[in-house]
Amino acid sequence: MCANIKPFETVGLDAENNILRILDQTRLPNETCTLHLTTQQEIWQAIYTLQVRGAPAIGIAAAFGIYLAAKQLPKTDYQKFYQQFLKAKDYLASARPTAVNLFWALDRMEAVVTRNSHKPIEEIISLLQQEAVAIYDEDTLACWNIGKHGAAFIRDGDQILTHCNAGELATSRYGTALAPIYYCHEQGYRLKIFADETRPLLQGARLTAFELSRHGIDTTVICDNMAAQVMSQGWINSVFVGADRIAANGDSCNKIGTLSVAILAHHFGIPFYVCAPISTLDHTILTGKDIPIEQRPETEISELWYQKKMVPEGVSIYNPAFDVVPHHLITAIITEKGVLKPPFDKSILKIGE
Amino acid sequence: MCANIKPFETVGLDAENNILRILDQTRLPNETCTLHLTTQQEIWQAIYTLQVRGAPAIGIAAAFGIYLAAKQLPKTDYQKFYQQFLKAKDYLASARPTAVNLFWALDRMEAVVTRNSHKPIEEIISLLQQEAVAIYDEDTLACWNIGKHGAAFIRDGDQILTHCNAGELATSRYGTALAPIYYCHEQGYRLKIFADETRPLLQGARLTAFELSRHGIDTTVICDNMAAQVMSQGWINSVFVGADRIAANGDSCNKIGTLSVAILAHHFGIPFYVCAPISTLDHTILTGKDIPIEQRPETEISELWYQKKMVPEGVSIYNPAFDVVPHHLITAIITEKGVLKPPFDKSILKIGE
Repeated sequence: MCANIKPFETVGLDAENNILRILDQTRLPNETCTLHLTTQQEIWQAIYTLQVRGAPAIGIAAAFGIYLAAKQLPKTDYQKFYQQFLKAKDYLASARPTAVNLFWALDRMEAVVTRNSHKPIEEIISLLQQEAVAIYDEDTLACWNIGKHGAAFIRDGDQILTHCNAGELATSRYGTALAPIYYCHEQGYRLKIFADETRPLLQGARLTAFELSRHGIDTTVICDNMAAQVMSQGWINSVFVGADRIAANGDSCNKIGTLSVAILAHHFGIPFYVCAPISTLDHTILTGKDIPIEQRPETEISELWYQKKMVPEGVSIYNPAFDVVPHHLITAIITEKGVLKPPFDKSILKIGE
Repeated sequence: MCANIKPFETVGLDAENNILRILDQTRLPNETCTLHLTTQQEIWQAIYTLQVRGAPAIGIAAAFGIYLAAKQLPKTDYQKFYQQFLKAKDYLASARPTAVNLFWALDRMEAVVTRNSHKPIEEIISLLQQEAVAIYDEDTLACWNIGKHGAAFIRDGDQILTHCNAGELATSRYGTALAPIYYCHEQGYRLKIFADETRPLLQGARLTAFELSRHGIDTTVICDNMAAQVMSQGWINSVFVGADRIAANGDSCNKIGTLSVAILAHHFGIPFYVCAPISTLDHTILTGKDIPIEQRPETEISELWYQKKMVPEGVSIYNPAFDVVPHHLITAIITEKGVLKPPFDKSILKIGE
C-alpha cells in the first residue's frame, strides 16, 4: 500500500490501528511513498529489501513486527505462546544479521513477555504494544540528545563529510550522525555537507542528500572515491558517521566504506566522530574482529540500479555490506548519554554501568 | 560505423586506408563493437565521450587525428598549412585537458611539420602518417617493457588491486598498470586481481574486468569503497595503477580515486606502483599542485548509467575526473626505460637525460 507521506515523517507507528508506516527508501529520491505494514512478514520483507534501513529504524520496525506477530498467536497457553513468540523473534532477527539494534529491540520485547509470564496473554500483548511505542519514543529522545552532545564539535561555517545515511531516514527522527548537523542548523549555523554517494545502494546520494536538502542544508554529493581528493583540498573540517554495532573496545561496524573514510580522515588529521545510541554498544563482543559481516547479492553491484549488466560474465564480485573501523581511528563516540573518548574500553564500560 | 572486433584488438591503425579502429569502450561489457573513424571531428568526439580513453590510447588517436586533419588542409603554401595545422592541433588538444600524452603526441606530430618545413607538403603529410604509426608501434613496445620491468615486483600467487583501467584498452597493447600482470600471467603465475569498479564511469567493472577475464585471469570486482576492507583482511600484496601525468617530483595524476587507494595502501603497508611510459613525465610541472584537473558533467554521477535520477534536485554534485597522488605515497614508478625509485625528483631527472 502506498500513501502520501506526512511532512518529514520517515517511520511512524499507528499503534491504535496496528500499522507501521515507513517511507519506502528504495524509491527515493524519485518517489516519496509511504508503505503501511500490518504483518511481521511485510516487516521482514521491508527490512530485508532495505525499504526501511538504518540500525535504529530497523529496531523500531522489528519491535512493532514482533508485537504484530504476537497478536496472531494462540492466547490460551503461555508456554505455547512463548515458544511461538521465540520463533517469530528468530524469523525477524534473520532479516539483517549485522544490526545489533535489531536483536536489542527483539530482546527487549522478549523481556516484556518473560517478565509478565504470570499475566493474561491479552495483557502481555498490550504491554508489547506499549514497549514498541516506548522504543520509538526513546529513539526520538536519544537522537535529539546525540544531536545536542555532537553539536559541541561543530562550528558555524564547518564543512562536514558523512557516509551512507544515518539521518532521520535511519531513525524515528533527527538521525544519529546527522542529528548534530540538524541541531546546529536549527541554531542558525551555516554548514556545508559532503555526502558520499555510498555504493552500491547509493544511500548517500539518494537518502542523505534527500533529507538534508529538504531541510534546506547545503549538500554536495560525491562518489565514494572522491573523499580523499576533497579532504586533500582542505575542504573538510570533520567526519560524522553512524554505527550498526560497536564492540566493547570501541571498534565500530558501519556501512561498507566507512573504514576507508576513517583512514583518510586520520591521514589528513581530520576528526572522525561515530554517533550512535547506546543500544548499538555490544558488550558481548570484545573487538571488531568478532562482528559478523553481512554479505549481500552480487547483483547489487553488477545490475541493481543499471538496466543492463555492468560487470562481464565470469567475473567474481565481492559485496560486503559493512566494514569495521578500529577504535584508534575514532576521535569520539557520541551517544545520547554523553561523549565517549579514548580509551574506549574504559569509557564504554563506564557508560554501561 | 560498427564492425566486428578482431580478437584482442582495442585500438588499430589502418594507415593504408586512413582509418582509426577503436573498440567503443562506452558499450562494454555488453557489446564489443569497433568504430571506424576517418575524420579529426570523429576522433575528437571519440576522445571526449570516452569511446577511446587511457592516456596512451588517447595519444595514438590524437596523432592519427591530426594526420587525418593535415590531409584535408590546403597544400600550396607552407605557412597557411602550418597555421591551420596548429588550429587543428588546438582543437584535438581540447578534448581532454589532463592527459599529457595527448599534448605530447600532438607536439611530436607538430615537430614533424616544423622539422620538414622545407619539404613539399605532400611529403610532410606522408611523414605525419609514418609518425602516427611510429607512436603506435613505440607504445606497444613501451607497454611490453613496462610489463617486463614491473614483473620483478610480482610473485606467483599474488593478489593485486588495481583502479580504473590502465590495460590494453587504454593503450595499443598490454596496457601500463596491467602489463606486468599480463607478463606474469604468460609466465604461468597464478594471480588474483581485485578491480575497483571506479565510479562514476565504471572503467574497472566494465573495462578492466572485461579485458582481464578474456585473458582468463581470476578477477573480482569491488566497489571503490571496499578497497580498505579488502586490504584490512590481508588479501592484497600490491597495488598497480597507471598515470595520466607525472610531475617532475613524482606526484602522479591518475583517475579519481587513485589518491584514496594510495593512502589506504600506505596505511596497510602495501607497496603502491605507478606504471606509465616516460611520455607521461611532464618536466615542465614541478609538483602535482600545478596539474589542471578536468571537471566532468554532474550527470555522470546523477544519471549516466541509471535510467532515473539518483540524486535529488537542488543538491550539488562535484565530479573531478582525476586526483593527484603525492610522491611520498609511491613505492616506485615503472617505465619502459626502467624503474624509478625515490627520491623521484632525481630519478625522473636522470631518466629524462
